[in-house]
Amino acid sequence: MLNCAVVGATGYTGSELVKILLRHPKVRLSALSTRQEAAIPLKSIAPGISKRNPLEVRRYSFAEIKKKSDVVFLSLPHTEAMDVAARFLRAGKIVIDLSADFRLQDISLYEKWYGVKHRQKKILAQAVYGLPELYRESIRRANLIANPGCYPTGACLGIAPLLRDGLIDPESIIIDAKSGVSGAGKKLNPATQFCEVDENFYAYKVNRHQHTPEMEEVLSEATGQRVRLTFVPHLLPLNRGILTTIYLKKRSDVRVMEIRQSFERSYDKEPFVRLRKTGEFPTLRDVQGTNFCDIGFVTDPDEDEVIVITAIDNLIKGASGQAVQNLNIRAGFDEEEGLIG
Amino acid sequence: MLNCAVVGATGYTGSELVKILLRHPKVRLSALSTRQEAAIPLKSIAPGISKRNPLEVRRYSFAEIKKKSDVVFLSLPHTEAMDVAARFLRAGKIVIDLSADFRLQDISLYEKWYGVKHRQKKILAQAVYGLPELYRESIRRANLIANPGCYPTGACLGIAPLLRDGLIDPESIIIDAKSGVSGAGKKLNPATQFCEVDENFYAYKVNRHQHTPEMEEVLSEATGQRVRLTFVPHLLPLNRGILTTIYLKKRSDVRVMEIRQSFERSYDKEPFVRLRKTGEFPTLRDVQGTNFCDIGFVTDPDEDEVIVITAIDNLIKGASGQAVQNLNIRAGFDEEEGLIG
Amino acid sequence: MLNCAVVGATGYTGSELVKILLRHPKVRLSALSTRQEAAIPLKSIAPGISKRNPLEVRRYSFAEIKKKSDVVFLSLPHTEAMDVAARFLRAGKIVIDLSADFRLQDISLYEKWYGVKHRQKKILAQAVYGLPELYRESIRRANLIANPGCYPTGACLGIAPLLRDGLIDPESIIIDAKSGVSGAGKKLNPATQFCEVDENFYAYKVNRHQHTPEMEEVLSEATGQRVRLTFVPHLLPLNRGILTTIYLKKRSDVRVMEIRQSFERSYDKEPFVRLRKTGEFPTLRDVQGTNFCDIGFVTDPDEDEVIVITAIDNLIKGASGQAVQNLNIRAGFDEEEGLIG
Amino acid sequence: MLNCAVVGATGYTGSELVKILLRHPKVRLSALSTRQEAAIPLKSIAPGISKRNPLEVRRYSFAEIKKKSDVVFLSLPHTEAMDVAARFLRAGKIVIDLSADFRLQDISLYEKWYGVKHRQKKILAQAVYGLPELYRESIRRANLIANPGCYPTGACLGIAPLLRDGLIDPESIIIDAKSGVSGAGKKLNPATQFCEVDENFYAYKVNRHQHTPEMEEVLSEATGQRVRLTFVPHLLPLNRGILTTIYLKKRSDVRVMEIRQSFERSYDKEPFVRLRKTGEFPTLRDVQGTNFCDIGFVTDPDEDEVIVITAIDNLIKGASGQAVQNLNIRAGFDEEEGLIG
Repeated sequence: MLNCAVVGATGYTGSELVKILLRHPKVRLSALSTRQEAAIPLKSIAPGISKRNPLEVRRYSFAEIKKKSDVVFLSLPHTEAMDVAARFLRAGKIVIDLSADFRLQDISLYEKWYGVKHRQKKILAQAVYGLPELYRESIRRANLIANPGCYPTGACLGIAPLLRDGLIDPESIIIDAKSGVSGAGKKLNPATQFCEVDENFYAYKVNRHQHTPEMEEVLSEATGQRVRLTFVPHLLPLNRGILTTIYLKKRSDVRVMEIRQSFERSYDKEPFVRLRKTGEFPTLRDVQGTNFCDIGFVTDPDEDEVIVITAIDNLIKGASGQAVQNLNIRAGFDEEEGLIG
Repeated sequence: MLNCAVVGATGYTGSELVKILLRHPKVRLSALSTRQEAAIPLKSIAPGISKRNPLEVRRYSFAEIKKKSDVVFLSLPHTEAMDVAARFLRAGKIVIDLSADFRLQDISLYEKWYGVKHRQKKILAQAVYGLPELYRESIRRANLIANPGCYPTGACLGIAPLLRDGLIDPESIIIDAKSGVSGAGKKLNPATQFCEVDENFYAYKVNRHQHTPEMEEVLSEATGQRVRLTFVPHLLPLNRGILTTIYLKKRSDVRVMEIRQSFERSYDKEPFVRLRKTGEFPTLRDVQGTNFCDIGFVTDPDEDEVIVITAIDNLIKGASGQAVQNLNIRAGFDEEEGLIG
Repeated sequence: MLNCAVVGATGYTGSELVKILLRHPKVRLSALSTRQEAAIPLKSIAPGISKRNPLEVRRYSFAEIKKKSDVVFLSLPHTEAMDVAARFLRAGKIVIDLSADFRLQDISLYEKWYGVKHRQKKILAQAVYGLPELYRESIRRANLIANPGCYPTGACLGIAPLLRDGLIDPESIIIDAKSGVSGAGKKLNPATQFCEVDENFYAYKVNRHQHTPEMEEVLSEATGQRVRLTFVPHLLPLNRGILTTIYLKKRSDVRVMEIRQSFERSYDKEPFVRLRKTGEFPTLRDVQGTNFCDIGFVTDPDEDEVIVITAIDNLIKGASGQAVQNLNIRAGFDEEEGLIG
Repeated sequence: MLNCAVVGATGYTGSELVKILLRHPKVRLSALSTRQEAAIPLKSIAPGISKRNPLEVRRYSFAEIKKKSDVVFLSLPHTEAMDVAARFLRAGKIVIDLSADFRLQDISLYEKWYGVKHRQKKILAQAVYGLPELYRESIRRANLIANPGCYPTGACLGIAPLLRDGLIDPESIIIDAKSGVSGAGKKLNPATQFCEVDENFYAYKVNRHQHTPEMEEVLSEATGQRVRLTFVPHLLPLNRGILTTIYLKKRSDVRVMEIRQSFERSYDKEPFVRLRKTGEFPTLRDVQGTNFCDIGFVTDPDEDEVIVITAIDNLIKGASGQAVQNLNIRAGFDEEEGLIG
């Protein structure tokens, strides 16, 4: 049994992570920590646990977590996670960080988009971007895993194979994404009050969302091509899920069949990516509550356009489920452990 | 044309009031005021107005509103409205107050439930409770109209006729009410964040909601019987509407037909109350966007129970529409003016 | 491993049952059957299963199910389940029936409310009402378990202890229940089209819902008192969950403390009932996705009224979870098996 | 007063049309017709009308409508409206048809996409496409107005000015649209049952929606350029509204300022199009319940991409409000009549 701590267990991603780890047959929850003064009964974040389960979420000292844990998951706000990560890393722990603090290798991009100096540049180079479908081999040996953003997960999985195989134009990528409200986190916000979201829908941060550089860097790095993309996120009046509609330009000499082959080669053996028949597309319902990314696409033989649609649960494959998938890879467990059923 | 000011025009009830008054053929909007620094274009609270409409919502001085207005509507927070009301009243204006500050004639009750001293006791006696179906004659002459709470409107209209006609037990009244989220107002609140309300439902302030004394006082005063009631409000995952399910005990010698006759006598000529056939019940959809209170009921010949269900739009008949209905009565306009269609 | 078949696996309760059984460590799914012509991949009803899972839902013959299964769950429409149940029972199987066909021991009530002749009167006497908190001992030995209706589960758990302990008036019970739309099943219905339900709310079958006799019979039988109750169900614009607000009259000599003691005595050892502190009440969120029934209540020392609020997930404790709890009891498994986490 | 009939008054667009016309100061409703046997009280489709309003929706004969009406609005299913339109047209009425039957001048396209022979080819040439911002002058004289589809309205208004002014590439147009469920109409449909739509989101008819040829034809015809577009509609879990996100390629020599100027020139005097500041975008809330189309856009000085977002209420500017706007133009009324406030 691996002893795992969750630091920041009361937010939406933290709670989801706790719920997944509770079902994981090879994990023992060693510490569930929060900055709040008063301890919180576990059932308030994981309502399905046994009445006999005595676990609670409370303040823990660094020393206490260090002593009890092999792996530390960080569900802390961006810009705050980096120092905590550094400390646990120095203490010899495996750190899986759900914040954005170690996702961008280009420090100037990080500092521009997140508005703070990066204070842990030394360890940034050790960080591996935790998208198993692209970086599984590096994740196996990583002690600092930068768990991907929710939008980049849904987008990159729909684009990377085609890009890597040289089938599409790397400078004509349009990503029109639609996310449920839990992606905005639990922070009090006038824009996410019920009466503002209910029966409403709109785009936000049009072409200036902080996940844009994350996607561009990852796709460029993973495929060796300079990628430029247009990214427009929208807010859906629902709790969970991201549907990403992607518009790509096929290179002129590429045959339609090659698109399908590229996806199949990349994903047939992937435990958490499911490819649809050509012309069939996933719904959010297909993936809610699961760690799957479902992908559908269509091409037009007479035109050069490829439309790809991906669906994920933003709190699972887009955050906490992917974090556990990364744990499984790093710990040498079966990759499906705790994530299926 | 009557010159009407709305003080507090940017909250949910204030905005709704502005939208209704804009369509009112006998009203000119003389001032739309807010405490916010920057002026707000009218279309941000009334999106359907003409592009040519130059009105805006902004800060106004007392003197400015006084000079321009015959009637002042107050959509201010409870405990703040009373002093503003007093000032406009002394300046000779007709004041229609949408707060709770002048609804309770029993000052001790007000102070207990709203947690502040009442600072305008002198004018409290002048206040008329603005429920037209019970107090139309007094409203015709009132200069200070205390516009009813949303829950009391839906509940009292379902109970008062039977109580007044002595058909039901005044001490066995159960009110199980369900309200949309706009009833909670625009104030930032963790409990009304989208992810907390969406797909959720619960009771709150069980038997300790501040509308309980309001209903008890109004029903007692209007019917001459000491009323005691049980009131359990619930929060619905939707924007607008209150459905109130009321459980009453018929006096043993009362015949079923008398229940219907009592409702018909009270409401057949009322412009904004619609009685259903016995055994048919309203939905929120039937009244959303309207000033109607729809009422259905059923009795069991073998039992003494009467079930009454009423539906209103909490922002219209439960607040701003009723305020305009009160204006129409006070100003001698046709009572439907601006409220139909 | 126990071999379990689900007959009618594609409806809302059937699918939920399959998802629960897939996680159950002591169950093997022997047959997932549907009347539809074409086989359905399992992931379309259980989207979280492994890509490697080859199970599908398809037509099975009686003989095939009989051969492969120890236990047969029936998720069939009311009035159709009875004959299928009889056949599997004769074949020596344990039958857990999620329909209403064996819930009412009074055949005349069944025939009145469900509008058909009961065709399996002989085996009706063998049927045990599968509410573990009331009938656990009988369930241990039952071969035909009539899984309770969703509304009766939420209501009976809030009332039975007080009734059994003689603390409340058995003829003054008011049940105001609010259910999510999945309770209406998957059948095409104009009333459950999205645009009719969304942002809407209403009562239906006021005092004439078919669960009324079920509650009256169960409560009377379990407590030895003739119970008469008023039941008003309402439709919530959400997918899952039932919140039941119950109004009871305490007998005049009963002290407030006895109410709490009665609930504690009944439920402290129950794995799936959680009692709140007095004056605290559950939300649907507290129980969605779980097999729990959460109960809160309040009494007023000066009055005789007791307000009890219960919350369940209608598809789990109100249907499929409870069916698995009954399986666990009947099979001698730990009662929490497959239902926790 | 103009006598107007609504044929097919009980669907979502028909009901909305009746509600608008009821408020129109220059219209008298001469006939509200339905194919249903029993008459329907007007309040069931227009809940806000006066209790004294005696209008009802019922079956009318052709002769009766002909005798009473100057203008006939048709809210009938596609493929059924054409014959009714022809008959009223021959009887000298002005016909405003909300179906698709006269929108496509290319009959082969109509027959391909709607799957039936066009039976009224003779009058097709008289039909004017009722998008006032593009065809106002023709509408003034038209006796047969083909009211546009909801998606084409939102899309064409965001594209036509730039296309007409030659600022964008007519062959690189991507339209990613998201619509509320009322767009699917009132027909019973498993896909629009509440539990299927609620908390769900997905694309449908990807690049094969019947509005694709409508948009291509209108944009080509109105701008004199052969247009080819990619169109992906999605279903939002809400009742009303369409948000359309449009991705365009600016011609390389076009300056950013010209984009804004093109929109301003086209829309500054339009009563129902509102242009946002560059980089600001509309929400559905901004237009729900109104006849407005709100438009926002952004360009990147270093890139050739233009992102345009438009918002409409699909039942108003996307259907019934636009029909009344067309009436106002045809009848020589102020174009805002009945559509403002």
